[in-house]
Amino acid sequence: VSAPLPVAVDVMGGDKAPHEILAGAEAAAAAGIPVILVGTPEAVAGHDLPSIEASQVIDMAEEPGAAVRQKKDSSLVRAAEAVRDGRASSMVSAGNTGAAMAASLLRMKRLSGVARPAIAAPLPLAHRDGKNVLLDAGANAECQPEWLVQFARMGAAYMRARFDVERPRVGLLSIGEEPTKGTPFVKDVHALLLQPEWQETAGCEFVGNVEGRDLLGDVADVIVTDGFTGNVALKTIEGAAKQLVGAILGAFDMNDESRAAADVLLPSLLPLYQRVDPDNTGGAALLGLRGVSIISHGSSSAKAIENAIGVAHELVERSLVAHLGDVLG
Amino acid sequence: VSAPLPVAVDVMGGDKAPHEILAGAEAAAAAGIPVILVGTPEAVAGHDLPSIEASQVIDMAEEPGAAVRQKKDSSLVRAAEAVRDGRASSMVSAGNTGAAMAASLLRMKRLSGVARPAIAAPLPLAHRDGKNVLLDAGANAECQPEWLVQFARMGAAYMRARFDVERPRVGLLSIGEEPTKGTPFVKDVHALLLQPEWQETAGCEFVGNVEGRDLLGDVADVIVTDGFTGNVALKTIEGAAKQLVGAILGAFDMNDESRAAADVLLPSLLPLYQRVDPDNTGGAALLGLRGVSIISHGSSSAKAIENAIGVAHELVERSLVAHLGDVLG
Repeated sequence: VSAPLPVAVDVMGGDKAPHEILAGAEAAAAAGIPVILVGTPEAVAGHDLPSIEASQVIDMAEEPGAAVRQKKDSSLVRAAEAVRDGRASSMVSAGNTGAAMAASLLRMKRLSGVARPAIAAPLPLAHRDGKNVLLDAGANAECQPEWLVQFARMGAAYMRARFDVERPRVGLLSIGEEPTKGTPFVKDVHALLLQPEWQETAGCEFVGNVEGRDLLGDVADVIVTDGFTGNVALKTIEGAAKQLVGAILGAFDMNDESRAAADVLLPSLLPLYQRVDPDNTGGAALLGLRGVSIISHGSSSAKAIENAIGVAHELVERSLVAHLGDVLG
Repeated sequence: VSAPLPVAVDVMGGDKAPHEILAGAEAAAAAGIPVILVGTPEAVAGHDLPSIEASQVIDMAEEPGAAVRQKKDSSLVRAAEAVRDGRASSMVSAGNTGAAMAASLLRMKRLSGVARPAIAAPLPLAHRDGKNVLLDAGANAECQPEWLVQFARMGAAYMRARFDVERPRVGLLSIGEEPTKGTPFVKDVHALLLQPEWQETAGCEFVGNVEGRDLLGDVADVIVTDGFTGNVALKTIEGAAKQLVGAILGAFDMNDESRAAADVLLPSLLPLYQRVDPDNTGGAALLGLRGVSIISHGSSSAKAIENAIGVAHELVERSLVAHLGDVLG
């Protein structure tokens, strides 16, 4: 058995690049996951890890398509090329999300039959510790109804590859449980998802419409929606969790008595805190490509990058791309 | 000065009708707010409060338009008629949301110039204790760009009437701060909101796009979006808050030591708990009508109804409809 290929890490992407990204890559390497750094010579210098040099950096605010076309020697493009060329198993970036998608798509190419790749985001507060997935979380602001059926197929493959969920339950995000609720677009998607054929070939069960309040519950393993609604919902969850945790910590810090009581509660609250911390979800996966590409949030810390590298490695080991091929058939 | 008109309360609407609705109406009356019950003779019998009898009930699952057309003697339709006829100042219902909207619209009629009424929902976790508002929270699943400018105008009037916010900041919900982010629809709305004319006549300031994570922050007083996205976002916040509060209570209840510590913290956590409890937001307001109509959530308790009645009364006292007329001009 040959050594596994390394995870390519875009050292230049993210608000805290390169320092936190490098620290995350080193932590992952120390934990036994092979990584290869992709960044400017200055950024990757002085690290023991293997590296690929790139002379350019794509900024967070750049227009994705133009940036990827023009900066062919950027860390983001070079990371995607490393996957394409078999030098890396997968890639992780906390940089410009649109550019990460564009670079992954242009360099790795779509799997056969994929209309549009989608971002699959594990939900941070979910009932079963992040073991459900929302897609599209932002790759395609506007969608055609058929795409969402494919998102459902791909989400099912993700749940099967990553969490061994044999027959994932698929829900459609809408504004009421009844099939008559929602926009004409959502009603069209509902009708398509009701058809038994795709459920059979994808090994899924369509459980009907789900609502915003069900996102963190246990009614569906895969929740499909357009990329606009999905992105709003995901960021709403992150914002609500952050506000609520902040308010609770404020209440704990009220006086000496409350601080002492909070100390007692910390051990039982810590797992919950870790669950709502977006650094722990391991990043979102771009599904539909001939390779694994993980998009970590822009403010990723070292821990977030370490987790994202772990998820990238795991998805390769668990043959995500083959699982995707099976359901796209 | 003549006595203020009563708030008409749909006694038959909601999962906990009529018992909790009646209890809420009685609590509001005991607190000095005049109410008039609207319900079946059996439901309103044995209460000291004035009442209007209605022989029919619109169920939660009925198709709104047909139900309102066919059940002309339903509590919901009679409550809206009481406002139209000057027997009540305003109405409150926790029943079928679509039917409450349809009854309010058909009986009270739109204010001059209103394209579509919208549901304005105070956000339960907001930075400043629910002092911002999201609209449309579900009245219009599909919208035209111009409608959102009107929603912004109406939201500003609401913030001015209810909270004395003189120059409300308006944000447009999207998936990135840049004007280039989002669907073509959202980009069109952004361009319209940028125009200084409406900001001047409405006394608003457009602060640009806001994201899901900003909903509970302090970046905008009024957040506009289409009714599909708004409903998903609102229910996502409610679901996230409920999940998180439930998980925290579970951690508190782990063992005797944690229970004792939790007792110490309760006084400082209670205000937070009350803030995230949807029973405390006072219900959503249907804006754009010649009258005040408050839609309380389906699972409303007595406390939720009491708060909704309080908000209805307050919005009448503070001349919401006149404020709306000013900005619609």
